[in-house]
Amino acid sequence: MTDDALLRDFEMHKPRALARAISCAESGRGGDIVRALYSKTGRAVTIGLTGPPGVGKSTLASALVRKARGLGKSVGVISVDPSSPFSHGALLGDRIRLVEHFTDEAVFIRSMASRGHLGGLAGATADAVSLMDAFGFDVILIETVGVGQSEIAIAELAQTTVVALQPGSGDSIQVLKAGIMEIADVFVVNKADHPMANQLRREIRSAMEMLQWDGWVPELVATQALAGEGIEQLWAAIERHMAYLNETGEIEGRRRDAFVHQVRQLAMGRIERRLDRVLESESSTGIDPYAAAERVISKLGL
Amino acid sequence: MTDDALLRDFEMHKPRALARAISCAESGRGGDIVRALYSKTGRAVTIGLTGPPGVGKSTLASALVRKARGLGKSVGVISVDPSSPFSHGALLGDRIRLVEHFTDEAVFIRSMASRGHLGGLAGATADAVSLMDAFGFDVILIETVGVGQSEIAIAELAQTTVVALQPGSGDSIQVLKAGIMEIADVFVVNKADHPMANQLRREIRSAMEMLQWDGWVPELVATQALAGEGIEQLWAAIERHMAYLNETGEIEGRRRDAFVHQVRQLAMGRIERRLDRVLESESSTGIDPYAAAERVISKLGL
Repeated sequence: MTDDALLRDFEMHKPRALARAISCAESGRGGDIVRALYSKTGRAVTIGLTGPPGVGKSTLASALVRKARGLGKSVGVISVDPSSPFSHGALLGDRIRLVEHFTDEAVFIRSMASRGHLGGLAGATADAVSLMDAFGFDVILIETVGVGQSEIAIAELAQTTVVALQPGSGDSIQVLKAGIMEIADVFVVNKADHPMANQLRREIRSAMEMLQWDGWVPELVATQALAGEGIEQLWAAIERHMAYLNETGEIEGRRRDAFVHQVRQLAMGRIERRLDRVLESESSTGIDPYAAAERVISKLGL
Repeated sequence: MTDDALLRDFEMHKPRALARAISCAESGRGGDIVRALYSKTGRAVTIGLTGPPGVGKSTLASALVRKARGLGKSVGVISVDPSSPFSHGALLGDRIRLVEHFTDEAVFIRSMASRGHLGGLAGATADAVSLMDAFGFDVILIETVGVGQSEIAIAELAQTTVVALQPGSGDSIQVLKAGIMEIADVFVVNKADHPMANQLRREIRSAMEMLQWDGWVPELVATQALAGEGIEQLWAAIERHMAYLNETGEIEGRRRDAFVHQVRQLAMGRIERRLDRVLESESSTGIDPYAAAERVISKLGL
């Protein structure tokens, strides 16, 4: 399919065209289509959902999709799997909890396996957000697994970031330590019927007290996503945060941050590809890594 | 302290000089000292230890240190916390399980909080490995928390990578999916007295069957690190992998990979700093991110 045909199908609102455009972005060839459609972006609300493996993110995502659909909103879901540079995401594929939405035309679900370097993950995800936004989705939900850099990259793309934690996992402090404390606009204690749920809530509150909050203070919501409990409260907290962003004008700052983040990832991705070509041909024997880095940078023309 | 004085103290084998040199590396000023000492590197054995939060990595690390000390080997430990770009690791500090080694002069333990982008994490960690190697440690253990990019970066630095998983956490498949399957030289099922330990072992074996193995096939060891059980077997598996690397000559490839990785991170770190300065002054209104990225790259002189 030529780019023109793809663009025409996209503008005729064919989901297959959206899927194909995201595939282009994933393989690093999203530039033309994103550029052509970029003027249509800026309308969607973007929600990030993150937390450690096993917390029930897919179930929470599914419940949030159901809630948004109940309000008549169309929803695009991006599931980011920070997978291996080796396997190319071969072990992917258990998005079963989102299956109930597969036949709903106002819901579009896309798994993305990040390959190789972080720039790849964030770059293609940013493109997918732009494409879903241009396609006309009211809400874009970006779900990611893991602890560390990937959440932070996601938080830079989302207007509201929801961090889910589970009781009794023994990892709350480690998770909070890993730097996702500061990216949360809303905390979710999922599996709230667990005997240690209250302890986790106390731990989150104490961890919050260790930080200075300026403006929005993260809300804490308890859910049992499998039973659908607490989802109304979670949605209300997300809406309060969105209202806060709009009332204070901070929404413009978030949009600007997301744009700069996307530009940065794109630029770094291009530079990285050039750097890798230089590194391949670099035979650095007998010198230290700093000298080698200087030589590589000068070979790049910098 | 001047660099000359630092270097003199380092060569006199003062642990404070090593600590100070690593601090320099952490703040991006490790170049001079690493360059001056680089010729002394290449002797240490490097072991990476990774796995999800709560699996008991610090306990395993402590047990491995004890084992290595029993064999008369000196050990440097680097604990990498992929922390926030905002908090600068303010929530760090619970390395309590390693406390038993704090008074042993042949053990040096260092926590490193990664700041900002991945290049920062891997770059400073690579410098710390070089510095500990030059200082004369026999074994360097690099421990990291998280799922995703940080493990992969660590695996590029370590000669042998140990991946620890815990039974009953419900996350084994998610963890395996996240791409750490392929970086493992040795799998550890910790908390092996857990009723679901056998299930986890089966899951790891099935996941392994989905991949092609060429050369070394990862070993699977069960431990109860808190009770010290299985540590002999874990150490033996690590030694078998080291022997394999040496006998096949693959050790040279691993050293070369670690070197290229370090050069790449150093070069990317420098380029990123320039890019950030350009981005700060970039007021990209009304253009799409691809156009903005092109403009930024041309402003960099590339």
